[in-house]
Amino acid sequence: MRTHTCGDLNSGHVDQQVRLCGWVKNIRVLSETLVFVHLRDAYGSMQLLAEQSRMPQFAEHKRVLEMLNPDTLVDVSGTVVRRPENMTNDAEKTGQIELLVDKIQVLNHAEPLPFSPYIKSKLPNEEARLAHRYLDLRRPELQHNIRLRSKTTSAIRQFMDDNGFVDIETPMLFKSTPEGAREFLVPTRFKQMLMAAGFDRYYQIARCFRDEDLRADRQPEFTQIDLEMSFVTKEDIQSVVERLIQRIWKTIKQVDIQVPFTRMSFAEATCKYGSDKPDTRFGLEISQLPDLAPDEHTVAEAIVIPGGAELFTTRELAPFNDLIGNSQKNSESKLTTIHKVNPQGVTGLGKSTLLSRWLTGSGDGLDQQQRQAKLSSVLNSISAKSGDLMFVSERSIYVTPANTTLGRVRSLAAKALQEKGALTIPSKYNFLWVEDFPLFTRESDDAHGKLSATHHPFTAPVESDLSLLGTDPAKVHGQHYDIVLNGVELGGGSIRVHDPAVQSYIFKDILELSPRVQDSFSHLVTALGHGCPPHGGIALGLDRLVAILTESISLRDVIAFPKSANGRDLFMHAPAVATKEQLAEYGICVATPENGSCKQATSTVSDSARKDK
Amino acid sequence: MRTHTCGDLNSGHVDQQVRLCGWVKNIRVLSETLVFVHLRDAYGSMQLLAEQSRMPQFAEHKRVLEMLNPDTLVDVSGTVVRRPENMTNDAEKTGQIELLVDKIQVLNHAEPLPFSPYIKSKLPNEEARLAHRYLDLRRPELQHNIRLRSKTTSAIRQFMDDNGFVDIETPMLFKSTPEGAREFLVPTRFKQMLMAAGFDRYYQIARCFRDEDLRADRQPEFTQIDLEMSFVTKEDIQSVVERLIQRIWKTIKQVDIQVPFTRMSFAEATCKYGSDKPDTRFGLEISQLPDLAPDEHTVAEAIVIPGGAELFTTRELAPFNDLIGNSQKNSESKLTTIHKVNPQGVTGLGKSTLLSRWLTGSGDGLDQQQRQAKLSSVLNSISAKSGDLMFVSERSIYVTPANTTLGRVRSLAAKALQEKGALTIPSKYNFLWVEDFPLFTRESDDAHGKLSATHHPFTAPVESDLSLLGTDPAKVHGQHYDIVLNGVELGGGSIRVHDPAVQSYIFKDILELSPRVQDSFSHLVTALGHGCPPHGGIALGLDRLVAILTESISLRDVIAFPKSANGRDLFMHAPAVATKEQLAEYGICVATPENGSCKQATSTVSDSARKDK
Repeated sequence: MRTHTCGDLNSGHVDQQVRLCGWVKNIRVLSETLVFVHLRDAYGSMQLLAEQSRMPQFAEHKRVLEMLNPDTLVDVSGTVVRRPENMTNDAEKTGQIELLVDKIQVLNHAEPLPFSPYIKSKLPNEEARLAHRYLDLRRPELQHNIRLRSKTTSAIRQFMDDNGFVDIETPMLFKSTPEGAREFLVPTRFKQMLMAAGFDRYYQIARCFRDEDLRADRQPEFTQIDLEMSFVTKEDIQSVVERLIQRIWKTIKQVDIQVPFTRMSFAEATCKYGSDKPDTRFGLEISQLPDLAPDEHTVAEAIVIPGGAELFTTRELAPFNDLIGNSQKNSESKLTTIHKVNPQGVTGLGKSTLLSRWLTGSGDGLDQQQRQAKLSSVLNSISAKSGDLMFVSERSIYVTPANTTLGRVRSLAAKALQEKGALTIPSKYNFLWVEDFPLFTRESDDAHGKLSATHHPFTAPVESDLSLLGTDPAKVHGQHYDIVLNGVELGGGSIRVHDPAVQSYIFKDILELSPRVQDSFSHLVTALGHGCPPHGGIALGLDRLVAILTESISLRDVIAFPKSANGRDLFMHAPAVATKEQLAEYGICVATPENGSCKQATSTVSDSARKDK
Repeated sequence: MRTHTCGDLNSGHVDQQVRLCGWVKNIRVLSETLVFVHLRDAYGSMQLLAEQSRMPQFAEHKRVLEMLNPDTLVDVSGTVVRRPENMTNDAEKTGQIELLVDKIQVLNHAEPLPFSPYIKSKLPNEEARLAHRYLDLRRPELQHNIRLRSKTTSAIRQFMDDNGFVDIETPMLFKSTPEGAREFLVPTRFKQMLMAAGFDRYYQIARCFRDEDLRADRQPEFTQIDLEMSFVTKEDIQSVVERLIQRIWKTIKQVDIQVPFTRMSFAEATCKYGSDKPDTRFGLEISQLPDLAPDEHTVAEAIVIPGGAELFTTRELAPFNDLIGNSQKNSESKLTTIHKVNPQGVTGLGKSTLLSRWLTGSGDGLDQQQRQAKLSSVLNSISAKSGDLMFVSERSIYVTPANTTLGRVRSLAAKALQEKGALTIPSKYNFLWVEDFPLFTRESDDAHGKLSATHHPFTAPVESDLSLLGTDPAKVHGQHYDIVLNGVELGGGSIRVHDPAVQSYIFKDILELSPRVQDSFSHLVTALGHGCPPHGGIALGLDRLVAILTESISLRDVIAFPKSANGRDLFMHAPAVATKEQLAEYGICVATPENGSCKQATSTVSDSARKDK
């Protein structure tokens, strides 16, 4: 229909006859003989001029125009002319020109809109916008985000093509599997089968589903960039991902990213930053205090917030207390205490704190001076000065939490310091590989707790740790790697086990899987034994990636039709209650206490295995 | 690990040191000092030469090599050398060279394989191959198909990018909807919402699901190329698709496809070919015999198979009789009869056949000569000669079947004639647009049957038929179009209704949807009324497209992990029976006669609406 979009037009089109289709922004009847219309389409906007002397049947057109609601859709033809000099608008791309209208025709009338998507200050809350998502999507920000997402996937696919990857679709309909999230993501096993089949460079931009843990910034449907390669080492896969990231940032943001990215062991990340996805753009590092540990089962650590004692009011410290309380509930730490450092020493030295217990000594009665010296030495060792805030924490050495209490304190403190202008987090891209995770994690915080796979049971051990598999499996590191950007996990992957004997040993002797679960993995072991190459892969979260590229706060701003924070589609009103007829068609019914089927089941693999890649 | 693949190597690499990873095809121990190994990877094959004088620790290597099963995976280093002149093999890409091995290392041992994927004549049946899909996928044909599929989607995406389409993901998790297949495909409504939102060129390569009608060549999961555009006519969309097809054929098959494609009305397709997806590469057209129609409710038609009476034995005609019997059962025709044309007239003139009834006349007693003349005239009119086979059929004018009995006879006859060498179907690409479908279809074969949407209730009426909507809706044609290639439907689409009043009228007054179903569409009508542009789209079947490009007989040959003909995944053993624990986790149970919930439901929209695009 149209010859141009509003985004196409500029002074170069003066005197040309064009036809546009777009939405009416507003109409100004200047006089009996002159009407201005502002037109908008997905690519820009244009001023239309309907003038009695230049337009056939002007009066009739004027009558129609006067009645139109905003966002009515029109089809308009006319000649591009230069605006009078005093009427130009340098802020607009089409600010030098306007369209002298010959003909204007309504394509679709608009009822009054429930809200205008164009006036940022008047937008209703997110629930109301999600309920009219098609209007919300007219917002320039969302138009930009969704289009940028498409450009991003295009750049990704181009890179994968250039590097010999084959785009292969894996099934979405299959049975539930015991190894992962409640409903499994991109099933690792299909990727492994593709490697066994000889497709040595597979990729897919795949829709995935989760049926658990719908926190505010998680979606039940999400999209992963999934790749797998044969005959590779960890470094090969990291290199491909680094070059992919380089390509994306170059294409989308015209920014050069330096490679290789920094590598950090999981041990270092948790010790220094209390997190397996540390934001390394700022310091506030955690210090280890081995002297303070009351026994060999405990790690003692501290973090110092410079000036924190003076910067934060008691009210401002409340969130830190809440955080500590929650962490204790989640067994992240045994005890964490807050201390203000002052010229006299430190506050908060209750009898039972780790610090006071250590200062007091093991019952052999140190005097005040000795204690003071001890305190000074520990404060010196962690560079804590008067006016600083200090957190001291103890935790079990047998659990390997992704985030420690002090790691959370660090993030919260950074945010609070930033708000006070006491910390500037540089706006740069600190890409980071976190690796050398323990292959297995204890399910309880003692030395003999049952082991479960830290990521998933197909992750290969680090070669040099292979001999420990039979003797001390808790000490074995896995060939798993997470890619982290400024404190956000972009994805993770691993080199997989390709030796059927090793895989069987892990299933049976280390994880002690039930015969039923082992049986469900038997076809994988068989396939490994039919000449499956060494292989590994990674999955990156596309939604998160695009959110970072568009600097969006919520994933909902980079997904066309997201679910609301509580997992509902407010526009389509999904999920809906199944009708009796629908249930009957599928031969199922809702369990009730009467028919006795509705008891809570327990999953077969531990929670820690759910973080599946 | 590797420096090259087998596919990389040629005479240009002579004297170079290379490292390959691949599967052992076979091992020939020529002597105590010489072993030949044939190596294969996904890109080619290579002859390896292990020679005592050139290889450290030869004896040890030889011992290992002698024990290896085929498809064991090795990592091998050595020097590329030219083969002795009498040992070259021009049929192989690497037939001029071989690798003089320095070092060979087993990466993964292979147990004896359940079957070899490389020997075509020894392949087991498809069920056995699907149960070890990773082995089956090593077959060169499947490697080719899956890689070509990836190249095809890449070419498609490149075209869509070049033409300003935005790749947008629509949700897969939402509630069931009343308008389509039992579980809906790419939901038209999300595409419509994107148009309402101002994304005027959307596309997606989308996974779709069906929960019905799993015939031999249908998959429960399949993939569609889905696109939608605003401010367009039917011709605009057809033109985009034609150029897309051109691009695909040019990229993948280096073939120039002529555009525009032929257009044919649904009426012409059914009259001439008895099919809404006719193969126009050959004639065998159906003739209309209006004189033979006994009343105004009936269409009389015939098809002539030249030489058919002489070519086919009675046994060879059995499939035709079966076809006719089945068609009668499916109410495609009232009666279809077979007649051999001979010098004396025609056979099969039983008393009740359409032909004999007509020849006999309406009770006013024609004599033998008059009847003979009448027969000659009708045979002449359809060019039936002695020795030909003729099928005569009658059907209701009120149902508009996609395929008539004579259409099926035509396909069967073409195949049979081709097998006898009596017909050559040229190998060319006859792309065809079938359009001008009736917008509504009667649910029963009388003049007053209830109307349902032929495709879906969002299809726009042809503009010139708009006035009939209120007076004679059965006569209204829809702006629907199917794209057909050589008798195979590649996809279909339509211009959608964008006027909320027209859409409401169709829901309420023509389709007489229940208030509940109307209500479930209310947000669509509301969205149309908020300035939704005129728009339309199409969905093309990717699996079918790739099957045509690869000349595969079954869709299973272009899908990495297909379901078997009965919808099962024979490798993962899916679907599986849900355990009591799984059912409990979701709070559902299987309906039994005891809990009374298991009666068959009836769908809210008729079967004819299921053919949804």
